[in-house]
Amino acid sequence: MPDDFALEIAATDGAARTGTLVTPHGVIRTPAFMPVGTQATVKGILPEAVRATGADILLGNTYHLMLRPGAEEVAALGGLHRFMNWPHPILTDSGGFQVMSLATLRKVDADGVTFRSHLDGSTHRLTPERAVEIQTLLGSDIVMQLDECIRLPAARDEIARAMALSLAWAERCKRAFENASPGRALFGIVQGGDDPELRVESARRLVDIGFPGYAVGGLAVGEPQDVMLRMIETVAPVLPADRPRYLMGVGTPEDILEAVARGIDMFDCVMPTRNGRHGLAFTRRGPVNLKNARHAADPRPLDEESTCPAARDYSRAYLHHLVKANEMLGAILLSTVNLAYYQDLTGGMRAAIANGTFEAFRATTRECWDAGDIAPR
Amino acid sequence: MPDDFALEIAATDGAARTGTLVTPHGVIRTPAFMPVGTQATVKGILPEAVRATGADILLGNTYHLMLRPGAEEVAALGGLHRFMNWPHPILTDSGGFQVMSLATLRKVDADGVTFRSHLDGSTHRLTPERAVEIQTLLGSDIVMQLDECIRLPAARDEIARAMALSLAWAERCKRAFENASPGRALFGIVQGGDDPELRVESARRLVDIGFPGYAVGGLAVGEPQDVMLRMIETVAPVLPADRPRYLMGVGTPEDILEAVARGIDMFDCVMPTRNGRHGLAFTRRGPVNLKNARHAADPRPLDEESTCPAARDYSRAYLHHLVKANEMLGAILLSTVNLAYYQDLTGGMRAAIANGTFEAFRATTRECWDAGDIAPR
Repeated sequence: MPDDFALEIAATDGAARTGTLVTPHGVIRTPAFMPVGTQATVKGILPEAVRATGADILLGNTYHLMLRPGAEEVAALGGLHRFMNWPHPILTDSGGFQVMSLATLRKVDADGVTFRSHLDGSTHRLTPERAVEIQTLLGSDIVMQLDECIRLPAARDEIARAMALSLAWAERCKRAFENASPGRALFGIVQGGDDPELRVESARRLVDIGFPGYAVGGLAVGEPQDVMLRMIETVAPVLPADRPRYLMGVGTPEDILEAVARGIDMFDCVMPTRNGRHGLAFTRRGPVNLKNARHAADPRPLDEESTCPAARDYSRAYLHHLVKANEMLGAILLSTVNLAYYQDLTGGMRAAIANGTFEAFRATTRECWDAGDIAPR
Repeated sequence: MPDDFALEIAATDGAARTGTLVTPHGVIRTPAFMPVGTQATVKGILPEAVRATGADILLGNTYHLMLRPGAEEVAALGGLHRFMNWPHPILTDSGGFQVMSLATLRKVDADGVTFRSHLDGSTHRLTPERAVEIQTLLGSDIVMQLDECIRLPAARDEIARAMALSLAWAERCKRAFENASPGRALFGIVQGGDDPELRVESARRLVDIGFPGYAVGGLAVGEPQDVMLRMIETVAPVLPADRPRYLMGVGTPEDILEAVARGIDMFDCVMPTRNGRHGLAFTRRGPVNLKNARHAADPRPLDEESTCPAARDYSRAYLHHLVKANEMLGAILLSTVNLAYYQDLTGGMRAAIANGTFEAFRATTRECWDAGDIAPR
């Protein structure tokens, strides 16, 4: 397994850190937000437009890609980077989460999980070895171990069982990854539900196995934000300082701000694109629902100071019109605005941590959200 | 009425012509293909991306825009150019065609047409004067007269009645347009169905009234291509050589090639974007249906020599995947490819006419289409 994959920390500020990760397809600046390219596309956005929002790395979904078009098929076409015309870093998940949330008739055993495709009902199997193989065929820069994700709330013994199984699978994934090409990295995933003791045990045992990076999984599955933040506070100190920490599937801008404050480096979430498709824009002044009729005659852009042309060059009235008329361009523009906002937020955090002003940034950002969207002038 | 709006003809080759039209928002190179921006957006394509395909001018639909968001509303927001962030020329139709094809319970009288919105059933009225007023509020560079469009086949006396009504409305539109701001132009529309005598009569009487440009309407409504081409051959010689000729709602690449050969200068059609949304690409080698499973493992781009990055940077396998997975990006890429192909086609014709090689261009283009899409190498 490659051992040259470390987070080069440029600065810390409290528990928050900023730095860089080097991958075979380029550098990732942390804290990093990874747009989600579920089916080998960030929904509705050209890859060069995703890049232009400031994204260093995308996330691809093993579950979706193994079902369609298929891992071997993507490999034969030159791998996922070439397939989707994204020559920059890619992290792939292991499929475990989507097996829980999308597949039907799933059956977990000690060796792996058998499930039926949500697309056509066909039967498939994922084992730790196959999860690594699929991600290797896709050509991922960062590979995630297979884990068992359970829904919360759950009984403690059920959480403990799934955590133990995920640890066993972590070891098998590490062995399966031993011959990976240089520079690529396998991340272990901390499980343990909402139980602090199980979380700490999971993290310690993963560190004993040893990974180039660690994810915190099984959160943002419906639990209150304070539970999620408490789990991060519990786990982060157990993880090695020089390894990247990735909070999977998170979250709102506030989730990300608070998680960075607690030492998280990487995030992925469908919120910017999914909300964009449903008419919601994230801005410095909080969310703006473009479906609302109050925008119908508003000539102002979403944010005249945004780095994103889509937030500056179109009136709220026009965006409202597109959303009401169910035009694709509404989804495209708002998804772009939201991806850019998430990148501006993580970029702002990187700069603030480097300057030793993270607390001031955090306070100002929260004040700006709380002040809310300004009235028409 | 402005009288400085003339087609500056740079070259002719047979009946085909190439030249330029100057409008308040820029120059249109003819033959010109106008992408359709029905609801103040070319479906799925950013305005700068539409421009990058080579488009000089867009078409906007009066019917759609008067219903949503409303002409007065667009005017209050600075006009259609600003509303949709397209600072280049815009032509708007008069609404007559969509009243026929989309509205319910329409009733035509001598003064205008009353109809119910397809959106909410509300009642609206268009008169020649209101059609001009709406297009003026939108800020169109080229305004179309209100006409009555009928379906073909139709009885001769019905065609004659609608033609006579359209001529009366043409005169009223001209009067209503008399105080238009300088540089803007009102086009008359030749009607007459598939009857050559009525077509000639319509064209002659429109020329007697006098317009800066002339459209041929009521074609591409289901009649065979040879009927359409015969009508063009009948009408074009009656129209003044120094005025642009616009064939409304046409058409396939072949329709456009053959219409230019018969002296048409301007076109609009939803085919590039509508077909793109349905998985069909137009290429130099004819149409390619990306839904077809034969593309699933094809690493080749749609056209390695295209001027359009979307046709060069993505494999057919990837485009097939996007179409099968119903991903927005498939519609976006294929719509872009198609808009670029239509612009390449009209651009190729402009160059060929200028070089006096239009017949060779026409023959080569047809041969290339007929040879069909090449097999994988």
